[in-house]
Amino acid sequence: MKVGYLGPKNSFTFQAASTITDETELVAYPSIPFCIQALEEHQISFAVVPIENSLEGSVHASVDRIFHQDKLFVAGEIVLPIRQQLLGHPDEQTITKILSHPQALAQSQRFLETNFPNTPLEAVASTTFAAEYVANHPEEHCAAIASNKAAGEYGLEILAKDIQDNALNQTRFWVLTATKGETLDSLGKPARNTLFMTLPDNLPGALHKVLSCFAWRNIDLSKIESRPLKTSLGEYFFIVDLTLDDNQALIQNAIEEIELLKGHTRNIGSYPVKIIQ
Amino acid sequence: MKVGYLGPKNSFTFQAASTITDETELVAYPSIPFCIQALEEHQISFAVVPIENSLEGSVHASVDRIFHQDKLFVAGEIVLPIRQQLLGHPDEQTITKILSHPQALAQSQRFLETNFPNTPLEAVASTTFAAEYVANHPEEHCAAIASNKAAGEYGLEILAKDIQDNALNQTRFWVLTATKGETLDSLGKPARNTLFMTLPDNLPGALHKVLSCFAWRNIDLSKIESRPLKTSLGEYFFIVDLTLDDNQALIQNAIEEIELLKGHTRNIGSYPVKIIQ
Repeated sequence: MKVGYLGPKNSFTFQAASTITDETELVAYPSIPFCIQALEEHQISFAVVPIENSLEGSVHASVDRIFHQDKLFVAGEIVLPIRQQLLGHPDEQTITKILSHPQALAQSQRFLETNFPNTPLEAVASTTFAAEYVANHPEEHCAAIASNKAAGEYGLEILAKDIQDNALNQTRFWVLTATKGETLDSLGKPARNTLFMTLPDNLPGALHKVLSCFAWRNIDLSKIESRPLKTSLGEYFFIVDLTLDDNQALIQNAIEEIELLKGHTRNIGSYPVKIIQ
Repeated sequence: MKVGYLGPKNSFTFQAASTITDETELVAYPSIPFCIQALEEHQISFAVVPIENSLEGSVHASVDRIFHQDKLFVAGEIVLPIRQQLLGHPDEQTITKILSHPQALAQSQRFLETNFPNTPLEAVASTTFAAEYVANHPEEHCAAIASNKAAGEYGLEILAKDIQDNALNQTRFWVLTATKGETLDSLGKPARNTLFMTLPDNLPGALHKVLSCFAWRNIDLSKIESRPLKTSLGEYFFIVDLTLDDNQALIQNAIEEIELLKGHTRNIGSYPVKIIQ
């Protein structure tokens, strides 16, 4: 079984992918579209990609790509805490520069303003690249913001621990499959169901009527989000996450009712959700 | 009256801002946060920023910043068609390279694949920079993807017209003000009302109940979008666009009812919408 992921090695997506298989089966891809394409072309059995971050919101490169083709399904979800570490050489006295991915620099902004107000920051391609650069250039006295895993991989010391601004910073990753109905049992029992939904044209209060189909049946929506259909302004599709209980039959009834109202739904999977502490 | 905008000169935001005042009053800012900050600090009377594109969706840098402070309001909206042109020197025979902003390259992807499958593409900071570079380096035989305005400004010829993949590509721009209730009458009569909304905690079917407050009154939602509250996963605020009719009193009643349900709303303006052809 080959599992593709958004690389490089030791990225947060790598950490998520590591929870479902061991390293020998993991294949890194340089971008989300390349990773998803490899799954579409059956070069890999699963693709692990980030879907949503608690600070930044949905990862559009993933969500839009999954919507705009119709061959991929969700086999499971992994929720990972995003903890950033300041890494450097042991006993580093003066840090002349701090390197990281722009998103990691942004997530650690308050820490940096308080502790390193005058130290230059440099945006690089990945947190892994930053750690590797620091490891290979001890004479430059620079530091990297990267993960715990990167510290171990490159023999760096954690100079400051968990420096991200928000303690609750988490990212959702989806394990995608090209096989309808496939779920990853190692992640647990199916707990969530995700639908893509487009609303009936010219029906006043369409979203309210469609949500009624769920509300009447006490089906809990854990999330609803709109994304542009890429046709014209004001036309959207919706991503709806439903909490699975003993209500699979009720969800099926709601979906049928939405179709009768001339809405369209696409069920992309009932899948387990594993939260990593 | 000074009007700030997301620069540089001749950007699409510049074109939007040009519809409300002449060039002598326009001030370019290098990023959306800098432009909004200048308005917060009363250095300018209005700030013009992109809010949503029909292909890419909401511009989070704008929407999140407006939500996470509470001093700014919408005085008007301008909807601009986004048309990309291939610009170069007159009678250019062989184009060795095409430069543009990554978003403009993405928006012209099909044109480039069909007509220039083997020509190197180079991502640069802005479409304006690309046009200026091509104008100043005729010996390099390169071309730029940029706007009509840039062609005139830098004396370049339009080698291929309207090359963007999607004919309906449009962007919404907001004219922001720090004065509550101020509207730009030059853009027309108020036509839309935008609310920021957070839902009552622990109310099952909360979104459905809140939307009922609008639906019962036949208030038309032209858009609803969720964005992360930046607290933890699964917590969102909503941006709701309402179509203004003779229904201002009904909207006020709906807002009061939502507050009674323990939802929170913030009205960021009833404003005119001007669509540029």
